[in-house]
Amino acid sequence: MLQPPPARPGQPESEIDTPALVLDLDAFEHNLDRMAALLAPTGARLRAHAKTHKSPVIAHLQLARGAVGQCVQKTAEAEILAWAGVPDILVSNEVIAPAKLARLAALARITRIAVCADDLAGIAAIEAAAEAARTRLTVLVEIDAGAGRCGVTPGPEAVALAQRIAGSPHLCFGGLQAYQGSAQHRRSPAERAALIGTAVEGARRTVEQLRQQGIACPIVGGGGTGSFALEAASGVFTEIQAGSYIFMDADYGRNLDETGAPVSTFRQSLFVLSQVMSAPRPGIAVLDAGHKAVAVDSGLPLVWNRPDLRFVSASDEHGKLEAAPETTSPKLGEKLRLIPGHCDPTVDRYDWYVGVRGGVVECLWPVAARGAMG
Amino acid sequence: MLQPPPARPGQPESEIDTPALVLDLDAFEHNLDRMAALLAPTGARLRAHAKTHKSPVIAHLQLARGAVGQCVQKTAEAEILAWAGVPDILVSNEVIAPAKLARLAALARITRIAVCADDLAGIAAIEAAAEAARTRLTVLVEIDAGAGRCGVTPGPEAVALAQRIAGSPHLCFGGLQAYQGSAQHRRSPAERAALIGTAVEGARRTVEQLRQQGIACPIVGGGGTGSFALEAASGVFTEIQAGSYIFMDADYGRNLDETGAPVSTFRQSLFVLSQVMSAPRPGIAVLDAGHKAVAVDSGLPLVWNRPDLRFVSASDEHGKLEAAPETTSPKLGEKLRLIPGHCDPTVDRYDWYVGVRGGVVECLWPVAARGAMG
Repeated sequence: MLQPPPARPGQPESEIDTPALVLDLDAFEHNLDRMAALLAPTGARLRAHAKTHKSPVIAHLQLARGAVGQCVQKTAEAEILAWAGVPDILVSNEVIAPAKLARLAALARITRIAVCADDLAGIAAIEAAAEAARTRLTVLVEIDAGAGRCGVTPGPEAVALAQRIAGSPHLCFGGLQAYQGSAQHRRSPAERAALIGTAVEGARRTVEQLRQQGIACPIVGGGGTGSFALEAASGVFTEIQAGSYIFMDADYGRNLDETGAPVSTFRQSLFVLSQVMSAPRPGIAVLDAGHKAVAVDSGLPLVWNRPDLRFVSASDEHGKLEAAPETTSPKLGEKLRLIPGHCDPTVDRYDWYVGVRGGVVECLWPVAARGAMG
Repeated sequence: MLQPPPARPGQPESEIDTPALVLDLDAFEHNLDRMAALLAPTGARLRAHAKTHKSPVIAHLQLARGAVGQCVQKTAEAEILAWAGVPDILVSNEVIAPAKLARLAALARITRIAVCADDLAGIAAIEAAAEAARTRLTVLVEIDAGAGRCGVTPGPEAVALAQRIAGSPHLCFGGLQAYQGSAQHRRSPAERAALIGTAVEGARRTVEQLRQQGIACPIVGGGGTGSFALEAASGVFTEIQAGSYIFMDADYGRNLDETGAPVSTFRQSLFVLSQVMSAPRPGIAVLDAGHKAVAVDSGLPLVWNRPDLRFVSASDEHGKLEAAPETTSPKLGEKLRLIPGHCDPTVDRYDWYVGVRGGVVECLWPVAARGAMG
């Protein structure tokens, strides 16, 4: 069941029902503009990842600032964006199930759809779905950019898959998918640069081998919030797939720049607003937001603007705070903003963004692809 | 947006779209019956916790087997059960926000509603809401049963709160909330018994002190899937608040009995069905279920009936499996059942239960209170 919105436009932030997913609109717009400005002088364009925001509203704000399209991970996410008029969607992931491929083929009638493959059997399944729907689908070959998850080894294996795609009557070879996920949260810029250097080299080699076979490679896609500047500057990557940059989170906040300071390119715009529901003992306060309300897979949340408070444990519906001895614990009923440890899965818990500016609720946006896992 | 169901009744399990929340109905019904049979000879009755299942369908199946009512943690969960005819609901948690208390007071017109308090200010807020709605609300005093989270210390502090409730014109003192959450996953029965012994002793002492003040204590509530037999046998607890017993999970599966074997009272009935979407290298397979699809706060999932496969990492939308060297890796497209590390937050990711019996989809039930956090 869709949950009712926790606020109305015009209300003060203090009246938002908790827990709520709060978006600081000034910081969010800064992040949108900043990414557009950073990519403009490079050869790469933004294909922002909708796995982060799951929102056609936000997709259109990114497109308005020059993004070439959107990435999604799931067929159901692609549907929700396509149904809301997003014109160019890449499923940056393998899709195997014939029922899902039939849905993607159906979407190809109303929008540009591309999908990834890393196996001949996968390509055959996509071809069968496109043929049955009497349409054409664009397919990218995923190469393992170093994360050791999906994707074939860069080089001849990828070329063989591209040839199979190019030779399939209902498919179009779209290029290479080369996302290096395990580089995104390496803390030192040197580590990130080393990992992305390897990813760039594998992609460059594969593009060259494709060219030798007479196969053009329109897209080389990858790059996340932690590494995108490296891919964008590589001369090899044509599309940047960053998602989290619009929101940021505690985990990205731990990445460091060359000076050893936290990377400050983007501002924290996403928060979970929560309320102290119990304060039974000095130095302890219990919030109404546990791990059902704020994802803990990448660490516990931080308390915004309150370095004196430590979020020490999350149970299903409770978050426990400890106060540093020199300060006063938050009072019963007090509302606090949390910085999620990880923005993507936190957003996926909610039905609504509550957009806030200057302490006042300005808008409600649905998390339209919340739970779109299929 | 509500996601469409991933299956239709009558389909074979192999045709369910993935990832999906699959309920083995034989095991589930065994668990329902087993709990009813275990509690029947004790003085305690079941008030099963709906934070686990978030389903009025399941609530009514528990009531039909003798449960006295349901627990919830959230006002929004109480609404969804009350609107579906559940006749007796305890919010086993403090509720502070006046807007939420007004909603609970409104529900008191159509069902029995009780809520917890651990602070005089909280009691005043509940009284104000009940007065404004011209109704009466039942309030339980939460005592800290040893978990160090919410609740006042057993004894005089709790008695003072009970007196304040009993003296409030629109409130009725309902008893004590005494859930010991930190005992539930202690592996050895001796550890669990020691912690619950302390919880029982605190509750017993508080009930006796209430009696000395002429205050009856109709409910003493607590107990979870890991400890309920101890509370039920105590002669002090009148209501058992277990939730997970209907489903079980990998974390509860690690609790041991007196012989050192895993506790086998209940069967695993809840699964996440997932599909191999990529198998790029020998010994590795990547599933379409990551931590957005299966909660990892209490550990990674296990692969059902495949001890040779290890779920080694979860990213947002991917689960990575490693195969033991002596076996064959799962093939591209193969579907596997996962045992979630933690059942409650896993259920909260989904819109539908897919009930399966004998390999065939028998029913679809909505996870009606999915995301009901407010």
